[in-house]
Amino acid sequence: MENKNCEARYKKGMNVLKQINNNAIEDLFNELEDVTAELGKFVVEFPYSEIYTREGLDLKTRELATVAALTSMGNAKSQLQNHINAALNVDNSPSEIIEVIMQMSAYAGFPASIKGIMAAKKYLKKRITSYKTKIKNN
Amino acid sequence: MENKNCEARYKKGMNVLKQINNNAIEDLFNELEDVTAELGKFVVEFPYSEIYTREGLDLKTRELATVAALTSMGNAKSQLQNHINAALNVDNSPSEIIEVIMQMSAYAGFPASIKGIMAAKKYLKKRITSYKTKIKNN
Amino acid sequence: MENKNCEARYKKGMNVLKQINNNAIEDLFNELEDVTAELGKFVVEFPYSEIYTREGLDLKTRELATVAALTSMGNAKSQLQNHINAALNVDNSPSEIIEVIMQMSAYAGFPASIKGIMAAKKYLKKRITSYKTKIKNN
Amino acid sequence: MENKNCEARYKKGMNVLKQINNNAIEDLFNELEDVTAELGKFVVEFPYSEIYTREGLDLKTRELATVAALTSMGNAKSQLQNHINAALNVDNSPSEIIEVIMQMSAYAGFPASIKGIMAAKKYLKKRITSYKTKIKNN
Amino acid sequence: MENKNCEARYKKGMNVLKQINNNAIEDLFNELEDVTAELGKFVVEFPYSEIYTREGLDLKTRELATVAALTSMGNAKSQLQNHINAALNVDNSPSEIIEVIMQMSAYAGFPASIKGIMAAKKYLKKRITSYKTKIKNN
Amino acid sequence: MENKNCEARYKKGMNVLKQINNNAIEDLFNELEDVTAELGKFVVEFPYSEIYTREGLDLKTRELATVAALTSMGNAKSQLQNHINAALNVDNSPSEIIEVIMQMSAYAGFPASIKGIMAAKKYLKKRITSYKTKIKNN
Repeated sequence: MENKNCEARYKKGMNVLKQINNNAIEDLFNELEDVTAELGKFVVEFPYSEIYTREGLDLKTRELATVAALTSMGNAKSQLQNHINAALNVDNSPSEIIEVIMQMSAYAGFPASIKGIMAAKKYLKKRITSYKTKIKNN
Repeated sequence: MENKNCEARYKKGMNVLKQINNNAIEDLFNELEDVTAELGKFVVEFPYSEIYTREGLDLKTRELATVAALTSMGNAKSQLQNHINAALNVDNSPSEIIEVIMQMSAYAGFPASIKGIMAAKKYLKKRITSYKTKIKNN
Repeated sequence: MENKNCEARYKKGMNVLKQINNNAIEDLFNELEDVTAELGKFVVEFPYSEIYTREGLDLKTRELATVAALTSMGNAKSQLQNHINAALNVDNSPSEIIEVIMQMSAYAGFPASIKGIMAAKKYLKKRITSYKTKIKNN
Repeated sequence: MENKNCEARYKKGMNVLKQINNNAIEDLFNELEDVTAELGKFVVEFPYSEIYTREGLDLKTRELATVAALTSMGNAKSQLQNHINAALNVDNSPSEIIEVIMQMSAYAGFPASIKGIMAAKKYLKKRITSYKTKIKNN
Repeated sequence: MENKNCEARYKKGMNVLKQINNNAIEDLFNELEDVTAELGKFVVEFPYSEIYTREGLDLKTRELATVAALTSMGNAKSQLQNHINAALNVDNSPSEIIEVIMQMSAYAGFPASIKGIMAAKKYLKKRITSYKTKIKNN
Repeated sequence: MENKNCEARYKKGMNVLKQINNNAIEDLFNELEDVTAELGKFVVEFPYSEIYTREGLDLKTRELATVAALTSMGNAKSQLQNHINAALNVDNSPSEIIEVIMQMSAYAGFPASIKGIMAAKKYLKKRITSYKTKIKNN
């Protein structure tokens, strides 16, 4: 019966992941499986199945909060990029994401914030065409 | 002319602070002034005057992002408490704040998240009376 | 059926906790319950029920690894103390714990290591009577 | 009038940057501009215009302090390299910079210090020809 | 007499390093020597000569503790890889190392743990042929 | 012969400590000795005997660099206070120390910098009587 229920938790988490960032979890399993798929299973079953599905905070805000955390911690570029992509997938605008990353300069310093913007370019450049501030050239 | 404009930036930041957390900035100046008020001035003029007033992200979400950052960095309890208070002052519900802090367990570990909840009690306990999860006793 | 299984996971984790540090989890629930008991439930169900029960590493070594991590991260004194107590409860000697904390000076710096030893005194002083190095006075 | 004054702050910061590390700020704007030049503007206007121009500490010592900070935080290699270059540009000798980075081993651990020396090679190798310790081969 | 004794400390540390990770210290000296070999000398003489040779904790457990620390600190991939290799060299099994890295998800978050597993692949893939969890495909 | 030489290293480090912060090392030994004096011995023999005595950087600048590091790492208040005291003892002025701490806001965020100033008050208040910025009241 435990396995049956574990499967339920796993599916519940995968449903969230399919909504917010399907490629990232597939990449994670591909990268992990030579060593241990268990860690990927925990990622699906704990944060996505049990945290992100909780009431009280929508997915849009949850992903912005994760972008804030990973930007300020400043040492997980690839994970930050996945969550920037996820944040876009749950209807955050590029500017909302950029504002969160810029704001982190006050709490974690400019290097953290600059690295966050550099990381953000991977997914933001695809989505923004005219989102360019002109300040420098003015 | 520089002083005049500095005053404008300072007032602009103080207007934000009066809206979101007036006591905190007064406490900060009281604590800093024996040593240096300059740092308090920078806090008013840079993050509050130049970041928090930017379009693209509302104050409610900005404060949640800061709660996420300070919870995950895990070493600034007093500042985290101020921003939990500020987050409440700009219309975040207790449960939105708790959800952000709990979510950080996935990105910064359980100790960061537990310390965040402990810090949150200072302001949350005043506002919640019936907000008690019953899970443990069920 | 989900609740039934959740209960199984919860009991499995509580069994580990009773073995290694019963007081700590009780204290945690007491401290959390005004705000949210959910976080305590996650602590029981994820690390203790799903990680600490895994084969491949005994509880004695798991607790030493956690002491190493919390000493080097250096910002969770209370949690470090709980895990020093837990490490003692699963048959680590005081000197094994002290050696791990001292070793962290090479990887996280002396302040982290010194803070770790200071934190360790809470539980170590009760257990060691003659464990005093005489180097200084020689 | 605000724009006029902002320009004054911007120019004041750029004057400092031209003195200590002109290439770095140009690179930063080039890298940021697809996403947001605002962050670069804040870097010019806050740390360089308002901090580095303050009396009480010379630029030479300020850059060494920044090298100490970025080495010990250990997660911003590119920014550390820019500040090692800047430190050289404001008359720090290679050995002063190396000493600061080595000293960090005591406060942030050997990995932070080793990574700092590795990062330093980008700019130090150009400037030192005979600065090689012979200890190993003795 | 000091040099003579320093040499004794150096040799004592090198003896430990030859046992646990000879290549890593050679690589370190090769990388450091253009700038400063002194830092490498300190690595040999302090952690390896004075810490790792202490009684009270065996080399096998010491290396696991270091893997725990570097995984949770999350910003020294190359050093973590060296210590994963060293951990294998002093008789830790791949699964013991993987368990420690996975366990860190609870104390430092999933990104730290995922990065740790990614780093571990460099040395673990050579040693494990059939160590693949099948959970995902079941 | 080893002991004799160890003593030499110990005395060499103690000579530095007597010059820069005698009380701090005495306090450290008093606090450590119930558990392990070994860690205190390492502090004397490695950073103070082998790092701080190196040519290439004077004690005044070394202590400022350590203040920068501990402020930016932000999790060792007591050690930061000891090094602020030491920095004053080797002829740094209060304003040089304050400037370093304020500058860290740009690299580690405002909370780190504010906590640094709060920590600095312990020793700075004794030494400054008229060092009060008047900005706030102007």
